[in-house]
Order: sequence, then structure tokens, then C-alpha cells
Amino acid sequence: MAANSADSLTPAIAADHPGVGELFAVLAYGEISAFYRLAEDAQMAPTLPGKVALASMAAAEMNHFETLHAALTARGQEIYAAMAPFVKPLDDYHASTRPSTWLESLVKAHVGDGIAADFYLEIADALDPSVAAVVREVLAETGHSEFVVHEVSAAVAASKRDKDRLMLWGRRLLGEAITQAQFVMAQREALTELVITATGDLNSIAALFDRMQERHAERMAVLGLV
Amino acid sequence: MAANSADSLTPAIAADHPGVGELFAVLAYGEISAFYRLAEDAQMAPTLPGKVALASMAAAEMNHFETLHAALTARGQEIYAAMAPFVKPLDDYHASTRPSTWLESLVKAHVGDGIAADFYLEIADALDPSVAAVVREVLAETGHSEFVVHEVSAAVAASKRDKDRLMLWGRRLLGEAITQAQFVMAQREALTELVITATGDLNSIAALFDRMQERHAERMAVLGLV
Repeated sequence: MAANSADSLTPAIAADHPGVGELFAVLAYGEISAFYRLAEDAQMAPTLPGKVALASMAAAEMNHFETLHAALTARGQEIYAAMAPFVKPLDDYHASTRPSTWLESLVKAHVGDGIAADFYLEIADALDPSVAAVVREVLAETGHSEFVVHEVSAAVAASKRDKDRLMLWGRRLLGEAITQAQFVMAQREALTELVITATGDLNSIAALFDRMQERHAERMAVLGLV
Repeated sequence: MAANSADSLTPAIAADHPGVGELFAVLAYGEISAFYRLAEDAQMAPTLPGKVALASMAAAEMNHFETLHAALTARGQEIYAAMAPFVKPLDDYHASTRPSTWLESLVKAHVGDGIAADFYLEIADALDPSVAAVVREVLAETGHSEFVVHEVSAAVAASKRDKDRLMLWGRRLLGEAITQAQFVMAQREALTELVITATGDLNSIAALFDRMQERHAERMAVLGLV
């Protein structure tokens, strides 16, 4: 449970908490790295509509980046300096989950974004509304999941082998995401403190990871991966 | 001179001219191919701000693609079928002008987009206002030229060798763009007819290419390439 659950109407984390700029910065570099991952993965697209779908998702990431850039600038922070600590852990996540097929790309685009959104949206519940609004805006669904759901569920309905491989792939994505999330959060003390305050305590973080696992399973089921 | 110059207030080309859908389609595939060219070229960026600048330009191309997608759909046309004839000539343009350095990427992004905009904006003057508005919207400056101008002009001021190479590069971009524009226009009869009507006649097309050459020289001068 987030620390600002029913027992309190005041957000646990004020807008001027030093971890807020770091949260915006990790989200900002997440958009950049997702942009380039999607643009690169699109080279595996077997059709032009597939290529366009990934380009549109990538463009949506950059629109979110602009929102975070503005939010950091408004806080008097230089975005490139702020993003620097997060470059390596996020690049490492992508390097450790490089898709080798078009279907793996689609599952990663959909499931990877979903895992990140689950995590940050729970944190958002504990943030000052002005900060939470930025976080929710940049994690909002961009309306491209329909394409992914259609492509993946059709493929796995037709091939037991694809289904088995993608189920393993989904499990690996979740594992790597949770591992990397811990590295990311550990980069900066203020951010670690923000996450612990937002979730309640260290036990609550474990509970959060459990909830993320459940939602991941639901998301996989929508893709026919159950 | 465009056919709708001072002697006529009626646009030469009606909104239902069969070349209009083809014009939207070539512009749409141009956005897709520019997206992937920019995303790929960004790998040469020496700094994160450079990488972000190209990603932002690429994202702007996709926003323009959405505008063209909507415009084609409103005309009852299926965008992928409509774009198909233009895939090869536009891919060929990019294959024949693949940058080998970061500075060449920046000059191509700036000067290549400028050449295309000069061409299509002259055509737009002869189109029905509803059609011209779409063309102008997708060719509008996206506000990223400042970054390119700053990077390139600083580099060429510091290195005569870079300057000489980039001046040759700019000339090659213009030559390839004009060659490919002729191939692109020749793909579909209705589009060829639209372009000839918009410019006046075949002599006027030659005059249009002369004007494009002048504007190209001005654009190169802004980059310090004079």
C-alpha cells in the first residue's frame, strides 16, 4: 500500500523533495533509451505497418521526454546532468533484453513499458499532485497496444513453439526489469528515500514487486501468453 | 511561377484532383523514411544532447505522418497501398546519401528537409486551400534547426577541411534530391500531371529547380558553408 492510502489525504512526498528531480530524470532517460530501442527493433518488422507502429511508439516516447524536459527545467535542473547517473543502468537493461525476433520486440515494447508504468504509477500515488500529474502524463497509454495485442495473439494462437518461447521471454523481461529497477533506484540517495517513503517501507517494496508480478501475468494473458 | 500567381485567384488544382492523394502518400512515406534515417544517424552522435536532438526531429516526422494518415483516410484511401509506389525511390535517395560522419548527418537532416520543403511548398501555392494547409503543416519548421546551425557552423569555422568536405556533401545532397524528385514524380501519372499543372509547364519546372538551387545556397550559407 502506498503511504498516502485512506489513512491520510496529504501526499507523503512534497513537490520540493530532492528525489523528485531524480525521478523525472530517470523517466526522461527511460524515454530516450526506449526511443532508440524501438527504432532499432523496427528493423525486424516484416511489414511497413509494423515498422510504422514501432516508429509511432518511439515518437510518443519523445513527446513524453519533452514534458519531462520542461518539468526539470521548471525546477531549475539541467536535464543532461540530471540524466547522467541513469544512463548505464537503463542501457544495461536494454542490452540484457535485446530481442532476437520481431515478436520478441513487440512483447518487449508492450510488456516492458507496462512493468515500468506499474512501478512508477504506484509511486505517483504518494506524490504531490503537481508532480504526480507529470508522472501520470508520461506513463499514459499511447494507444498503440492494440497493434501489439493483435499481432502477438494471432502469432501465438498459430504456433505453440512461438508461444512457449515468448512466455519464457516475458518472464525474463520481468526479472531483468526488477533487477535493473533496484540498480536504478540505488543510483541516488534522494531517489531511494523517495521510493521507500512512497511505498511505506522495505517490506512494502517487496509487496509492490508482488503486485507488479500479478499485473505482468494479466498483461501476458491479454497477449495470449497464458 | 505557380499557375495560381497574381493573374488568378482560383487554385489551379481542386481538392478532388487524383494527384492529391498521391502527393499526401509521397509526403507520408517521406516522413517514415526520414524517421528511420534520423534514428539511425543518431548513433553517430558524440553527445547525449546530439542524440536527443535527432530523436526529437525524428519524432516530429512521425507527428506529421499522423496528419497525413488522417488526411488520406478522410479521402477514403488506404495509406499503405498509397505509399507503396514511393518506397523504392525514397529509400534509394537515402541509400545514395548515407552520411559517414556526424556532421554529414546534421547537414543532411537540415539541408535535405529544406530542399524537400522548397519543392512541395511551391506546389502548395497551386492547391486548393484545404489541401495546401495539410502540405504546409507537415513541412513547417519543427524548431530543431537551431541545434544543427550551431553545431555545424562551429565545426566548419574551426576546420577548413570539414568545411570543404561539407560543401561537397551539400552539393551532392541537392543533386541526388533533384534526381530522386524526378523519379518520385514519375511514379504516378496523376501526380506528374499535378506537379506540371502546379508549376505551369515543363519550362517552369526547370525554373523551379533553379530557385531551389538558390535557396539551397542560402541555407548552406547559414551553416557557414559558403
